[in-house]
Amino acid sequence: MINVLIVYTSHTGNTKKMAEIIAESATTAGATVLVRPAHEATNDELAAADAVVLGSPTYYGHSSGEMRHFIDHSVKLHGKLEGKVGAAFASSHNIGGGNETTILDLLHALLIHGMVIQGNSSGDHYGPVAIGAPDARATRQCEELGCRVVALAARLQRA
Amino acid sequence: MINVLIVYTSHTGNTKKMAEIIAESATTAGATVLVRPAHEATNDELAAADAVVLGSPTYYGHSSGEMRHFIDHSVKLHGKLEGKVGAAFASSHNIGGGNETTILDLLHALLIHGMVIQGNSSGDHYGPVAIGAPDARATRQCEELGCRVVALAARLQRA
Amino acid sequence: MINVLIVYTSHTGNTKKMAEIIAESATTAGATVLVRPAHEATNDELAAADAVVLGSPTYYGHSSGEMRHFIDHSVKLHGKLEGKVGAAFASSHNIGGGNETTILDLLHALLIHGMVIQGNSSGDHYGPVAIGAPDARATRQCEELGCRVVALAARLQRA
Amino acid sequence: MINVLIVYTSHTGNTKKMAEIIAESATTAGATVLVRPAHEATNDELAAADAVVLGSPTYYGHSSGEMRHFIDHSVKLHGKLEGKVGAAFASSHNIGGGNETTILDLLHALLIHGMVIQGNSSGDHYGPVAIGAPDARATRQCEELGCRVVALAARLQRA
Repeated sequence: MINVLIVYTSHTGNTKKMAEIIAESATTAGATVLVRPAHEATNDELAAADAVVLGSPTYYGHSSGEMRHFIDHSVKLHGKLEGKVGAAFASSHNIGGGNETTILDLLHALLIHGMVIQGNSSGDHYGPVAIGAPDARATRQCEELGCRVVALAARLQRA
Repeated sequence: MINVLIVYTSHTGNTKKMAEIIAESATTAGATVLVRPAHEATNDELAAADAVVLGSPTYYGHSSGEMRHFIDHSVKLHGKLEGKVGAAFASSHNIGGGNETTILDLLHALLIHGMVIQGNSSGDHYGPVAIGAPDARATRQCEELGCRVVALAARLQRA
Repeated sequence: MINVLIVYTSHTGNTKKMAEIIAESATTAGATVLVRPAHEATNDELAAADAVVLGSPTYYGHSSGEMRHFIDHSVKLHGKLEGKVGAAFASSHNIGGGNETTILDLLHALLIHGMVIQGNSSGDHYGPVAIGAPDARATRQCEELGCRVVALAARLQRA
Repeated sequence: MINVLIVYTSHTGNTKKMAEIIAESATTAGATVLVRPAHEATNDELAAADAVVLGSPTYYGHSSGEMRHFIDHSVKLHGKLEGKVGAAFASSHNIGGGNETTILDLLHALLIHGMVIQGNSSGDHYGPVAIGAPDARATRQCEELGCRVVALAARLQRA
């Protein structure tokens, strides 16, 4: 069994909606999924996860202060998250508005924890991005991410 | 008088079209503008410019090898481009397809040459991005960039 | 007269030390300098500055949650900081430990506010980085940054 | 059996030396390793690899034009490299000189090919960096990378 933790911050509800789509897809793929806003997520939940998916709106090109607080706090687990699967997603108001730098900000944190991440050769390469509310395209990206994360975590667990 | 050099690479013509829109806008703003494909642009042209605008399609999240060759070659001018104005633009096939990382790749090169760059608090923050051929939105971003680059170079020249 | 605002977060004191070196250099260059920890800095202070310098330790490859909270909060001034000078610096524990991504995180925020930033063709290209406490090399980078920021702000003010 | 392909460009020999250290470590870990300069590496070699490690000197904050040409050319394999293991390393002249942005440039390309990458919670987080010739610290980072890449590829192969 794969445990997926999805941590997000959301002001308008767009990022939360993305989190829910990813969660539904990961559940369908057979995982046990926990979806948590960043201010409620705990280090115990991080430690228990096989895969960690982080999502944030784009605030000045990066994830929100609330998300970075959650990440800063995860230092207490430093070294203990090595080898888990990580992934990220983001929403912003505009094309060219900082979506990619926000996702990469989250991926950097996951890499520094020693996690394993995978890109996507089709669609949104670094992770799903939505411009405003997730449209059909962004929804499909989120669905695919949920499935891919579970598949990768399952491969690593079997090994 | 402000001299603007616009250097681009383009496979499908989309990035070239963006270069031309920026050039027209910069010309309207009163500058003398030279538009050059990267494989023809010279270090003498770089040295003569008050403002340098680089544009590339998104190839694996970054500017093309051809553009990077042009940048690598500019090392012969290292230190001599300090204080010039720089800017960048990019096109890609998809949202989330590496547009922002491509623009930032170009901005990093300009910063390492000691150039002065300005972001944009509205629209495409790091520089104009087009998804496929430049649509009305991307065209407007390119027009605005041409104007802004000339305005900033003029401010710095007057000082 | 140039007003410089330096905003930092610091846990071990290393980033604070960098802020103080930059402040001293900017003061020597003729500016009025305000040095503020991020949790005390205000939007009024941001609005009053001609140049804004942000510094943070490297927490998981990016600036601290506290710094990002300060940046998130600056949205109330969105559009009003256009054309100000911006710069950034960072400290981390290790080479390859995320220093550059932290500085770029801060520069992205400044660009999205429409600010003007300048790279450095010698030394630390994106902004001063310290590995641990600022050594002679990092101190020199900080001194140079303080001077360069004031010079650029003065050029833009005269224009 | 794990096949590792290490592709590098090197002007001064520093990046080549890093490639050789990684190769030796990967060989010790049981892999068959091919080390190739970017202008000689082929798409067939890419297709045959279980793990791809890219290394470049830092030219204006990114990988060399030669490396980007190799990457651009790999588009003919697009979609066929999904799920392989990827990693990157870089050398530069200075701390703060663009090492991290160079490694991330390479990692972006690997992610866009759909590859699987892993960060490192200790040492150089995104991949080994050398300041000039690889010293004892950088050598250790390269040794560790060679071993980690083989271990991850083996896990994925077993699954």
